[in-house]
Amino acid sequence: MQHFELTILGCSSATPTSKRNPTAQLLNIAERFFLIDCGEATQIQLRKFKLKFQRINHIFISHLHGDHYLGLVGLISSMHLLGRTADLHLFCPAELQEIIEVQFKHSQSYINYKIVYHPHNYLNNDLIFEDERVEVRTLVLNHRIPCCGFIFKEKQLLATISKETIHNHGLSVDQIIEIKSGADLVKESGEIIKNKDLVNAIQAPRSYAYCSDTCYDEGIIEYIKGVNLLYHEATFLQEMESRAKETFHTTALQAGTIAAKADVKQLMIGHYSARYKDLNPLLEEAKSTFQNSILAIEGERIVVSH
Amino acid sequence: MQHFELTILGCSSATPTSKRNPTAQLLNIAERFFLIDCGEATQIQLRKFKLKFQRINHIFISHLHGDHYLGLVGLISSMHLLGRTADLHLFCPAELQEIIEVQFKHSQSYINYKIVYHPHNYLNNDLIFEDERVEVRTLVLNHRIPCCGFIFKEKQLLATISKETIHNHGLSVDQIIEIKSGADLVKESGEIIKNKDLVNAIQAPRSYAYCSDTCYDEGIIEYIKGVNLLYHEATFLQEMESRAKETFHTTALQAGTIAAKADVKQLMIGHYSARYKDLNPLLEEAKSTFQNSILAIEGERIVVSH
Repeated sequence: MQHFELTILGCSSATPTSKRNPTAQLLNIAERFFLIDCGEATQIQLRKFKLKFQRINHIFISHLHGDHYLGLVGLISSMHLLGRTADLHLFCPAELQEIIEVQFKHSQSYINYKIVYHPHNYLNNDLIFEDERVEVRTLVLNHRIPCCGFIFKEKQLLATISKETIHNHGLSVDQIIEIKSGADLVKESGEIIKNKDLVNAIQAPRSYAYCSDTCYDEGIIEYIKGVNLLYHEATFLQEMESRAKETFHTTALQAGTIAAKADVKQLMIGHYSARYKDLNPLLEEAKSTFQNSILAIEGERIVVSH
Repeated sequence: MQHFELTILGCSSATPTSKRNPTAQLLNIAERFFLIDCGEATQIQLRKFKLKFQRINHIFISHLHGDHYLGLVGLISSMHLLGRTADLHLFCPAELQEIIEVQFKHSQSYINYKIVYHPHNYLNNDLIFEDERVEVRTLVLNHRIPCCGFIFKEKQLLATISKETIHNHGLSVDQIIEIKSGADLVKESGEIIKNKDLVNAIQAPRSYAYCSDTCYDEGIIEYIKGVNLLYHEATFLQEMESRAKETFHTTALQAGTIAAKADVKQLMIGHYSARYKDLNPLLEEAKSTFQNSILAIEGERIVVSH
């Protein structure tokens, strides 16, 4: 089975603590390394967890609050200083280009590789990346400033046929191609063998939805329905619901409610306010509305499973 | 004796390592807290070492290479989020204002206190800050882009007179003021008592010179002559002298040479290239030309002494 795993690099909200860094996650799907948000000190976290940052070719920035992008210029510089030549694709708010370019202009620096900007269109489920294994779509969130979540999805793999089946039915290359594409087998005798009896069972593609930052918004449910892993911000406990609403954030209880209504397989919460030293009350609250909930913890690796 | 102590927050050069952060130092002179440079993750380092960053009212930025300022926007934001109202003075290259303002514009954020910009004039020994205890001057360095070092100096304290002396000579308030200002005492009998026999011994003001980043440049010697502590960058070992020259940096041996020629009391080296895991060879090299040399190490506190 191909890799589909997430490493948490930062899980704090706007003000970091001595133990929690601002938001960043590294997602590996089939050896594509996607960096999702890039808060201050992300390059230091990547080093700390021994993750090779030159393998990152695609960075997704949700919005322009500093705790989601302030590590980017440092990371781009280090990639250059360490000899990068490969293009780097940035999926981000259009204004980020000006923020980056003004800094390289004033530092009189150039970088020895190309940054390809893909500005957000702010359309729900806009396809922004696709290759033979993975597709990525945006999910417009409801925050104080324009903000996009992202949905990462494996593509359906082609069916495989065992050597034994090929031998038993004496399949030709043309027949194998047809069967892999879904055809039944019609034997010379006229006997029909159903496709499902010829191919190995294939598992449904997995998906990961990243939702940070947003207020409680049931409008996202239709887009994240049934995902294997949902990351949803949970900045506050429910007792601070009005503060959450005022700052366009979500409570842990509300994150659980969204997960339950979207019928996802697993919920991971994060983006914790610095006021919470102990994160267990946040987890307990999320579990009260959605049992299969876990905490985003820096350095932890989560395998996205079926 | 008033405080004059330096805490190292970061000592790496451009690419940080998992153990060393980019440049930042916190200097406390008589309870004035001066932040010198502010590389990425400086706010996290301040928290880690339990230094209260709301006490910082003056920040000095040497130049616009990212490893010297990328932590600034995050720190400014956190100061706001944690309720700051006091003015923050930024002594920096003029272009930093645009870099900061474009980021707050695009994040649609305001900050609830005033940033007072003091752009560098790039004059050697330009007085940029002064109060009753301290003065700070710039020192133009020789780097690839415009770059200023800083010289922090205590002011000469007024002499003090012991209670015993006051009693023995029956000094009036007017006489005390005159003697504190340097006058001798003329007694009614005509006898003259020298000022030095009346006042307590006072120590010379201490000074700290911060020189990062710069190539080897004897032009700075006249300005840093005799300082109590010199911080001088030492990015490379002498075996990389040509690389140092090409990148406008200094070797450890050269830093020691500058310290010796300037007849400083103590040298601290820093801004180490990421290639050096063990810093002792850098220290040994600096010591070969200036014996009283020490390493800048993150979290260490150095008292500037006479």
